[in-house]
Parts: sequence; C-alpha cells; structure tokens
Amino acid sequence: MALEQLSVNKVFDGQLFKYKFKSAALAGLDAQFNLFLPANASNGGKVPLLTYLSGLTCTEDNAAQKGNFFGAAAKEGIALLFPDTSPRGAGIEGETDSWDFGVGAGFYLNATNPKWSKHYNMLTHITLELPQTLEAAGLPIDLTRQSIFGHSMGGHGALTFYLNSIFSGTKQYRSVSAFAPISNPINCPWGQKAFNGYLQGGVEEAKDRYDATELIKKLGKAPVHILIDYGTGDNFYKSGQLLPENFLKAARDAGYDEVQVRVRAQEGYDHSYYFMSTFGADHVHFHANFLKA
Amino acid sequence: MALEQLSVNKVFDGQLFKYKFKSAALAGLDAQFNLFLPANASNGGKVPLLTYLSGLTCTEDNAAQKGNFFGAAAKEGIALLFPDTSPRGAGIEGETDSWDFGVGAGFYLNATNPKWSKHYNMLTHITLELPQTLEAAGLPIDLTRQSIFGHSMGGHGALTFYLNSIFSGTKQYRSVSAFAPISNPINCPWGQKAFNGYLQGGVEEAKDRYDATELIKKLGKAPVHILIDYGTGDNFYKSGQLLPENFLKAARDAGYDEVQVRVRAQEGYDHSYYFMSTFGADHVHFHANFLKA
Repeated sequence: MALEQLSVNKVFDGQLFKYKFKSAALAGLDAQFNLFLPANASNGGKVPLLTYLSGLTCTEDNAAQKGNFFGAAAKEGIALLFPDTSPRGAGIEGETDSWDFGVGAGFYLNATNPKWSKHYNMLTHITLELPQTLEAAGLPIDLTRQSIFGHSMGGHGALTFYLNSIFSGTKQYRSVSAFAPISNPINCPWGQKAFNGYLQGGVEEAKDRYDATELIKKLGKAPVHILIDYGTGDNFYKSGQLLPENFLKAARDAGYDEVQVRVRAQEGYDHSYYFMSTFGADHVHFHANFLKA
Repeated sequence: MALEQLSVNKVFDGQLFKYKFKSAALAGLDAQFNLFLPANASNGGKVPLLTYLSGLTCTEDNAAQKGNFFGAAAKEGIALLFPDTSPRGAGIEGETDSWDFGVGAGFYLNATNPKWSKHYNMLTHITLELPQTLEAAGLPIDLTRQSIFGHSMGGHGALTFYLNSIFSGTKQYRSVSAFAPISNPINCPWGQKAFNGYLQGGVEEAKDRYDATELIKKLGKAPVHILIDYGTGDNFYKSGQLLPENFLKAARDAGYDEVQVRVRAQEGYDHSYYFMSTFGADHVHFHANFLKA
C-alpha cells in the first residue's frame, strides 16, 4: 500500500496532499484521496483525524476546494481526510450509466451482490484501509482521535459509520456531523436504488447496517455526539430524499436530547456547497471539542 | 439591459445571484455574472461593492465557489461582484484556440485590433456597464463605495482599473488588492501575447494604459491603497509571468511606502485557489477599511 504523492498545495499554513495507492479493499484498483495536514503536524506531534465523506458524483476534490474547512482545521490543528466516493475503473457493466449509482455513488457500504462485491467496498476502504495506509506511511496522524462528517450520501456514510462504531463497540469515531444527510435511506429513492443494486438482500439487508434512522433506535442510551444541518430550501430535502425528521424523531424517541443529537433546519439554504461552506467551520469546531478533549 | 436571474443560493446568511443580460459593451452578446448581497442589503440600505476579477480560463463561478470570500463579506456587509473573464460566443476565428488568449482571457482591456474590437471590451463591460446595470436594476448597491481585487490576469485587471481611475481622476475604486497579479505584463509572455493580439499598437500601445508597473510611475504622489500577495512556490511567479518585484520597485521608486503599497511574498504558496482562499478573508477586510470609512 505504498503511497504515491500526486500533488501538494500549501493552504492556511498547512499542506494539502493528494495521494494515490493500490487499494486492496477495492480489489487492486487505484484509489486517490486528499489529506490536509495542519502546520502543527510538522513539529513531530501527531494530530487528530477528521474524515469527510462527499456526496453523489463527487471525487476527493470537491469539498477540498469548496467546503471551507481548512481555516478552521488549521486553527484547531486537525487533519482532514477526503476519500473518493466509489471505486474508479472497475469496468463493471453499467457502472457509469447513472449519476446516483455505480461510479461516484459507492454509498459507503460493502456490496454483497456478486456483480459489485469484488470492488464496491467503500466501507472497508474508508474505515479500515485508509487509516492503516496513513499509519503505514508514517504520516503524523493519531488514529485514537478520529471523527467523521459528510454531505448528502456522505452524511449517510458518516452517520452509519459512526453509529455502527458505537454499536459494535470499536468507537472508532468520537463525533459525527452531517450536511443534508440521507438520513433514512431505506425509505428514499436514492437509498432504495443503491441497496437493491449493491446488496444481495436489497433494502431488507440494509436495514440493520446502513440506515442511520434504524441504527439510532438500537443504541440503547450509549452516549453520542451528533450534529446535523440541512437547508429548508434544499430540493432533495423537499422531495423526500433526506428525511432528517425521521432521524430526529427516532433519536428523540430513543431518549437522546438536543445536546447529544442536534438537528438544525437552516432557513432557506439549499443542497449546494454554498450551504456547506457557510457551516463548514462550525462543524470542524464541533468535532474539535471531542477530538481535542 | 434587463437582468435575467439564472439562480440564487443562500450563503453566509446572504444571497448569491447569477444573472444574465445582453451586453452592449460586448456588442450584444449575453454576459453572465455572480453577485453576492449580504444580509444587511435586504434591510433597505445600500451596501458597498467589491468587484473580483478572475484569472485565465475562469468564468464568473470559480472564485465564487473557491475563493473563500463570503464569510468575510457577510461580516463586513459588503457586496461582491464576479464578472466573467471574456466575451462568450463572439465566434471570432481562433478565439478558442488558446487557453491564454481569446475566450476566458479577455485581459481586462478594450481591444483596438479590428478583429477583436467589436466584442473584446471587458474594460468598459466591467468598469462602466456592470455598475450601471446593477443600478438600473435597482439592486441595493452604493456605487460611490467601490473597491476591486483579482487573481493573476484578474490582479492585472484590478491594478490597472484602480490606477487608471486615480490617474484619470474618476477615483472609481477606493482600494485595490491582488493575488499573484500579472504585475508588469508588457514584460511577460502572457501580457505580450494579449497586447500584440488585442491591440493594434501591440505592447507599445499597452504601456501607458494596461501595465500596472508603468502606471504607478506616473501617479505623482496621489494617495493609494494597494495590497498584493503572491506565493514563492508559484510556478508562474518563478517563470517570470507575474513580476511583482518590478511593481514593488516602481512603487518604492515613486515614493510609496509600505502603508500605501504593501507587497507580501507568502512563503511556499502556489498559484491555486488554495493560496487565494487562505488570504481571501484578509483581502476582504483590507477593502472594508476603505469601503466603510
């Protein structure tokens, strides 16, 4: 898993690296990611890691360029990891036919449908392989201090990775946040399409593992740190792809108060990076509370 | 010059509008621009206008998405105008052959070469037509409070618009700043190609009107407010396209101290939006000193 450095840009006194490596989780395909290291990471110390998961159609670049996270991450001394959103170049029939399935739309799961299961394993790629790869490369990351956030499909990924890490007891992530997350994918068209495609058992198989609203019902009262923002002007919200109210209701029914699960309806904001950039620094500071505790 | 609104996005509690209109300055071609209005602009008051000029190959979108200006502009209560970088659709032979000439590379001048002079009039389009268009549309902009900034070719545009407005006495802009500006275009390949193409008199014709280093020599001691940042890791700086030292020397020789003309070499930064986003808020706050004075 040797890393090949493709580029480096100085930003907010830190450095943004773009790397490529042969991913075992993705069956040997090349995988790329961006990694921001704040200036304090070059002083010999290790820094916490905040992983950002992008939405449908994105690559590792979109949020690095438009998310407005680096100023806050530099100030807090936190590294940011931007993985890609799917395998690239698997060559599976039909994988580039849709913008919401296949390439650019890996949905942060491990596929079980044989057609997809060899390559489409973004769950393993992001939660296990990437941290191990950073560590093996000797990068100054403290893997005992990780949090995760994301946008839309990436918000779904962040929430489910986080909730599963609590449920399983690994507690890989200290906190999670999301912009306009797909909060209840078993009940929306994007999620149903993805699950019915990638999973042998379809939506039914997804219910216990890949649906944030279902997962939060099962946590008992395990402490959580969750922040969600969505815009009331978001057309995907309006058309029922996001369903944050379902997640909020499930969280409240499970006994979580607004300190542990905070869901904010942001008046008039849409699904774009303009929305995310507005609250980007706020989310980084939210995670810093836990990453630096 | 009726404006057609193409889109609107809420960002940092303000609104980013994309407009289209038939531009007389560009001989009737459609022109697009983005306009950010801070939240205080909707309270009936007029707000100052800070115009941002993009670099080669860009449209009105790049810096709106990646520049990291909105947070600071929202806080300061300043509108931001993002024009395009050239006419689009003139259909002039060869206008799309180069990335550094023609479409996407209007160089912020009025062409005098007959082949280009009908359409390539970005000087008039940006300094006169756009402000008049905003005013005619009843947008809450105070045109008596304008400043300007830009990147690379746009830094050249901003500096020359500003210096010419002092030289001519119109004083349209209160302050100017630039990221990695083409500071002495008559002496660099980009500038020479543009001037020899767009101007009947070539580089010689440009010397008095379109070269910031030449212009600052002629101001006498008229007060100026100029801030320039460039990165020492910028490959275009290293290859002699930017020449900020020439501008700095001309300014110092003309008697301007570092309060009036501040040129900062930023260690290790490159030519990208990562560089610009790092110092974007700083530039907006610089202009606010004068726009809100």
